[in-house]
Amino acid sequence: MSRHFEQTDGLCENPDPETKQYVFNQTMMRIKDPRRTLDFYTRGFGMRLIRKLDFPEMKFTLYFLGMVDDETAKHVPEDDAERTQYTFHQPAMLELTHNWGTEDDPEFSYHNGNDQPQGFGHIGFDVPDVYKACERLNAMGAEFVKRPDDGKMKGIAFVKDPDGYWVELFESGKTGAFGS
Amino acid sequence: MSRHFEQTDGLCENPDPETKQYVFNQTMMRIKDPRRTLDFYTRGFGMRLIRKLDFPEMKFTLYFLGMVDDETAKHVPEDDAERTQYTFHQPAMLELTHNWGTEDDPEFSYHNGNDQPQGFGHIGFDVPDVYKACERLNAMGAEFVKRPDDGKMKGIAFVKDPDGYWVELFESGKTGAFGS
Repeated sequence: MSRHFEQTDGLCENPDPETKQYVFNQTMMRIKDPRRTLDFYTRGFGMRLIRKLDFPEMKFTLYFLGMVDDETAKHVPEDDAERTQYTFHQPAMLELTHNWGTEDDPEFSYHNGNDQPQGFGHIGFDVPDVYKACERLNAMGAEFVKRPDDGKMKGIAFVKDPDGYWVELFESGKTGAFGS
Repeated sequence: MSRHFEQTDGLCENPDPETKQYVFNQTMMRIKDPRRTLDFYTRGFGMRLIRKLDFPEMKFTLYFLGMVDDETAKHVPEDDAERTQYTFHQPAMLELTHNWGTEDDPEFSYHNGNDQPQGFGHIGFDVPDVYKACERLNAMGAEFVKRPDDGKMKGIAFVKDPDGYWVELFESGKTGAFGS
């Protein structure tokens, strides 16, 4: 193993060679209303809808969002089956599950993992300018958990997506002093 | 916009140019016992501990895991501050938050988002051979939510990580027929 990596209890540094081909492909969250959530992540964060898979028998739809730059976009297959395979092979896809009809129920909501009982925390984006990104999200009407100048951790922000899931924003270039 | 992408209500296809530089960097989950969880993701899935950040005043530690191949590993900075910045700039990092002491409390557990109340669903890995991966995870003692031959969706499996979070395994090359 490279000396670059961290050491701590519990680590396996020589996993099965088969795992070298594994791809950390997706993070899945359930969403109430795809129109609101797709707007939030495409307009707010520049994500693209790479694939939409409908399962009419089970009455749900999966939306796969990813960050795809113009150059990469040229290599996304046009054929549906090939694009599905492409979708499941890329790292860092956001999978959104919509069970049909929840958007019409005013009482319906999902649990964000930060209210009790806690578990899942957030997804997070590295952005070139946190203040600028937050101004834009503010103008879009996003609800803030933490604005960049709130609290001790300046330059880090948390917004809620339409389901209340937390989304963190930070500038990687300014994270060098984090932790010890 | 490229005709490669999907169309549906709510999409913004011309987001602010600033968002082109955004990186979907991380998915954060709280964990009870880092020794068990680090073993699970490094031995079971071949992830590497790219960065460990301790916050002694607030009594928590962040562990950042990523899939790093041998070639990429050569480019991971050795300097601590530079490696932190590197960590926050890569796509598809798994951030694990450990609040100190939870591992010693037998009653303590986190909520996985699939039991009620539902929200967050799972993280998922594309693997070259789901059956082989599941045999290995089974030998490690992993708890299965769905074995690859259970139910209608053959070749897809779900295991629970040490906190009960669901981890999906699939072969991207066999997903072409999914959905409609």
